Amino acid sequence: MTRAAGSTQRTRVRRLSARGEYDPASIARVLDAQQVCHVAYVVDGEPRIIPTLYIRIDDYVYLHGNRQAALLNHLSAGGFASLSVVSLDGVVVARSGFHCSMNYRSVVVFGQGEAIPDDQRAAILDAFVEALVPGHQAVVRAPTAQELNATAVVRLPLNEASTKIRTGPPSDAEGDIDADVWAGVIPLFTQVGEPQSSPDLRDDVALPDYIKNYRPPA
Amino acid sequence: MTRAAGSTQRTRVRRLSARGEYDPASIARVLDAQQVCHVAYVVDGEPRIIPTLYIRIDDYVYLHGNRQAALLNHLSAGGFASLSVVSLDGVVVARSGFHCSMNYRSVVVFGQGEAIPDDQRAAILDAFVEALVPGHQAVVRAPTAQELNATAVVRLPLNEASTKIRTGPPSDAEGDIDADVWAGVIPLFTQVGEPQSSPDLRDDVALPDYIKNYRPPA
Repeated sequence: MTRAAGSTQRTRVRRLSARGEYDPASIARVLDAQQVCHVAYVVDGEPRIIPTLYIRIDDYVYLHGNRQAALLNHLSAGGFASLSVVSLDGVVVARSGFHCSMNYRSVVVFGQGEAIPDDQRAAILDAFVEALVPGHQAVVRAPTAQELNATAVVRLPLNEASTKIRTGPPSDAEGDIDADVWAGVIPLFTQVGEPQSSPDLRDDVALPDYIKNYRPPA
Repeated sequence: MTRAAGSTQRTRVRRLSARGEYDPASIARVLDAQQVCHVAYVVDGEPRIIPTLYIRIDDYVYLHGNRQAALLNHLSAGGFASLSVVSLDGVVVARSGFHCSMNYRSVVVFGQGEAIPDDQRAAILDAFVEALVPGHQAVVRAPTAQELNATAVVRLPLNEASTKIRTGPPSDAEGDIDADVWAGVIPLFTQVGEPQSSPDLRDDVALPDYIKNYRPPA
């Protein structure tokens, strides 16, 4: 199902290009580790940036939102966007300030938006719910016609995308290795707290297993 | 030291505008809770997006990187950019798919880049190290002339910025409150793992307290 992902002028990794990869499996893996992306687009020659939820299905990234939102109108009309996702994996503590950094996995996608037809919108919105909280989609009511009409769904193809990943210890300069300075990595990860029931939740609705066992994508 | 932050066409919160705020203290607080931003800019009419480390000092956001990086050249030359920072605080589990969401704190900044003069660059780079790992700047060697020459530092003013924040339980529709569906919030936060010493660390360099006690900004 995956098309070859391509490197172009717009997505080629220029700085530290040893960290860049273009294969579809790597791109999918990095995208599937997060739920929120940033999308950049151009309005009257000026950059705009918006954080938003996304899901990946096969070789597309899907976005949704209010039908009147400027970004969704732009992408529905076939406008271009650049989309980025980052997972932060650790603080890289080097012997010099110059080599201090972070470990991360990132994807940048460049592409032209495409509106999802009305009759396919409900299925994608269901997939958004299931991606956000696996198990929840099966128990919520179906969207109303009004909710579906208020919501736009668009997608960007993944055929112009690249990943950039940093892992491992600091890359200190040869002459700094013997310095009397601790060097290494402090790992970072997303942790889940105790679920907080809504104040207006019916007293007899128990915490379901799929909420108890919820773990964020990683 | 803070100027009034302003709402303009470019940063005004349009969707769910009750969530938007423009006061400098809120903007600083949301910026200070993260270390990595996304920056959008325009090249030949097309959007580009890049994740990068940042620090806030007074009413500016500072970025740094390789002097040859396209984004830094663009901003050093006074180019415009839109910058966004997001902290994800929880998964909002509603009784309907439509009201499922996330709790978050976000900032969007629009502004014109400004190069930091050579004689002020070292102080800002020191501040980057200290922000990344508080306590570490005091023990690393000073940057070399070569390192300083390889690095550009730019800043964006915060006078055109806005925050958008969602907190609290789901906002379910009146008619859904009594549904037999769990609703609430699953809190998310960044956790620190056990520090991993570099494989080439001298055996007699102990783990310092400032690494043991490291906590990410929140």
